[in-house]
Amino acid sequence: MLRKKLIGIEDVKPSRPDFEVVGAFNPGVAVLGEETLLLVRVAERVRQEDSDLVRVPVLEDGRVGIRTFRKSDPDCDCSDPRVIRTREGTFLTSRSHFRLARSSDGEHFTVADQPTLEGEGPAEAFGIEDARITQIGADSFVTYSSASPYGIVTGICRTRDFVSFERMGRPFCPDNKDVVIFPERMGAVFPVLHRPSASAFGPLAVWLAESPDLCHFGNNRFLFGPREGYFDDKRVGAGCPPIRWGEDWLLLYHGADRGDRYALAAAVLDGRTLEVKRRSRTPLMEPEEEFEKNGFFSSVVFVTGCHPIPGGVRVFYGGADQNVCCADLSFDEIRENLKKGE
Amino acid sequence: MLRKKLIGIEDVKPSRPDFEVVGAFNPGVAVLGEETLLLVRVAERVRQEDSDLVRVPVLEDGRVGIRTFRKSDPDCDCSDPRVIRTREGTFLTSRSHFRLARSSDGEHFTVADQPTLEGEGPAEAFGIEDARITQIGADSFVTYSSASPYGIVTGICRTRDFVSFERMGRPFCPDNKDVVIFPERMGAVFPVLHRPSASAFGPLAVWLAESPDLCHFGNNRFLFGPREGYFDDKRVGAGCPPIRWGEDWLLLYHGADRGDRYALAAAVLDGRTLEVKRRSRTPLMEPEEEFEKNGFFSSVVFVTGCHPIPGGVRVFYGGADQNVCCADLSFDEIRENLKKGE
Repeated sequence: MLRKKLIGIEDVKPSRPDFEVVGAFNPGVAVLGEETLLLVRVAERVRQEDSDLVRVPVLEDGRVGIRTFRKSDPDCDCSDPRVIRTREGTFLTSRSHFRLARSSDGEHFTVADQPTLEGEGPAEAFGIEDARITQIGADSFVTYSSASPYGIVTGICRTRDFVSFERMGRPFCPDNKDVVIFPERMGAVFPVLHRPSASAFGPLAVWLAESPDLCHFGNNRFLFGPREGYFDDKRVGAGCPPIRWGEDWLLLYHGADRGDRYALAAAVLDGRTLEVKRRSRTPLMEPEEEFEKNGFFSSVVFVTGCHPIPGGVRVFYGGADQNVCCADLSFDEIRENLKKGE
Repeated sequence: MLRKKLIGIEDVKPSRPDFEVVGAFNPGVAVLGEETLLLVRVAERVRQEDSDLVRVPVLEDGRVGIRTFRKSDPDCDCSDPRVIRTREGTFLTSRSHFRLARSSDGEHFTVADQPTLEGEGPAEAFGIEDARITQIGADSFVTYSSASPYGIVTGICRTRDFVSFERMGRPFCPDNKDVVIFPERMGAVFPVLHRPSASAFGPLAVWLAESPDLCHFGNNRFLFGPREGYFDDKRVGAGCPPIRWGEDWLLLYHGADRGDRYALAAAVLDGRTLEVKRRSRTPLMEPEEEFEKNGFFSSVVFVTGCHPIPGGVRVFYGGADQNVCCADLSFDEIRENLKKGE
């Protein structure tokens, strides 16, 4: 399969002159008329001007301001490039928003100059991340997660035009992420996948919920978890909205190993019960290309969207937490992968 | 206020001859006709026969079996009396179920000889805990939490007679506990309180959700959290179903400090917005009596139910994770407490 980098940080303008873009990745995907639309996660950090100082974006009184910490301060732990730990608390060094990218050929994208959707209020204080889009009739439902002082919170909103977005509340309690809605009802409800993070024990596993209205969610249950000795032995999470697969559903998901290497894999869910009938024993795609291996966070193929193409799907994913990428997967190679090791 | 121990471990028969009761506590409360009903959390452990061995209850193939560990085994950490940590995983030393206790005078209770409701399936593998009961019309809705290999999971079921229970699924994703349903709709939905535990950061705080049908829950939002420098600086959780308080709602909740001392406090929630208008600055009740200070887990007053009495409420609570207790609180003393420190 051919893999391409579609958008890099060089293609995205910072939202403010004192910010720089450090990632454009993990895009939600929608097809509207003849256009392919991506809601790209754009991560920005404050331009650093003094090597002894770290300047981080913070939300104060509803506006994004800047806090400055001295690296040499013994009370300031800067050892992880993603966070600053101080006595006052933990601060993220970057902040993400969503930026719309449009294309008429599905390969060449024009990225909006300004944020399309931004974090709002304390539950999205540290920004919004990793959109997934499910199109149902004329509506597109966007699910996402946000880092906040309350933990990792989920959000859902509805749009028709990707200009105005109606917020529909928080579907799940923290910590949760990777919320993915099925594209059609089963009986009276939409099945929904999500990935809670239990605090004390319990695996980083995919759970199933159901919703009559995409505002209220219930009947939460464990669906599948990491597997000892496989490429996905540390964590799994739903990737893009499931695709009809004969009588069943095909789910593309991410699995990460204990070395935090993220790969793309497939699971077949029973068309009636949604139980897992089959699952990749080896990844469908692993980080191999330069734009998947080297970036803000190395060795990541993180699938977040797809659309049908003849005989298969085009998947859109984040490479190395930095790039928007795509690859065409044929149904034949997915079938082949699912048979491996049987 | 007068506090009483109503039920102790000496009043409860073990469910099996090889088990012993180590706790009867944290009761959900309902009033049915002229009877007061409690769903008591009964914790049992396997009778220990050899001082070098620890025998723990485990769910295997749907049945509760017994596993034996040798305390002298270097791979077996028995330092915490509540858990055994081994290479195979962590095992709880006790297992809880619900036992019905009935009283015609509200003070003298007869405890059923056998479990009334038990954990079912892998999500309740380590038992069920801490029932809260909300009576709506002829239905009683029982919410509870369960420890499991998936984390701390919530459950809800409906009963009319406290003999048969209809399970209604898992309202929230793990980890979550202290789920409490309001006794009436506000608009089209029932407000519901819950207490998620975020994994990475985020306080142990009370969240608000809403449900049209008590099967599906949405619009999750942070309501109130621990307060630095107060008796509730480590964790808070809803206690019993809120009570009408003029135009507003009165919520009795538990707050614990960094020393894991659990006390009872009050919060007044706005009758329209449900925002917190007022909150106890000092506890309404702290562990003071012998049956609150010494037990399976020391210094705990953990409120789980109440019913109205003339001029106030009778609260039911767990004392020291071991005893079922009650106390009569007058509205005057609650008002007095809420004014303190203003």
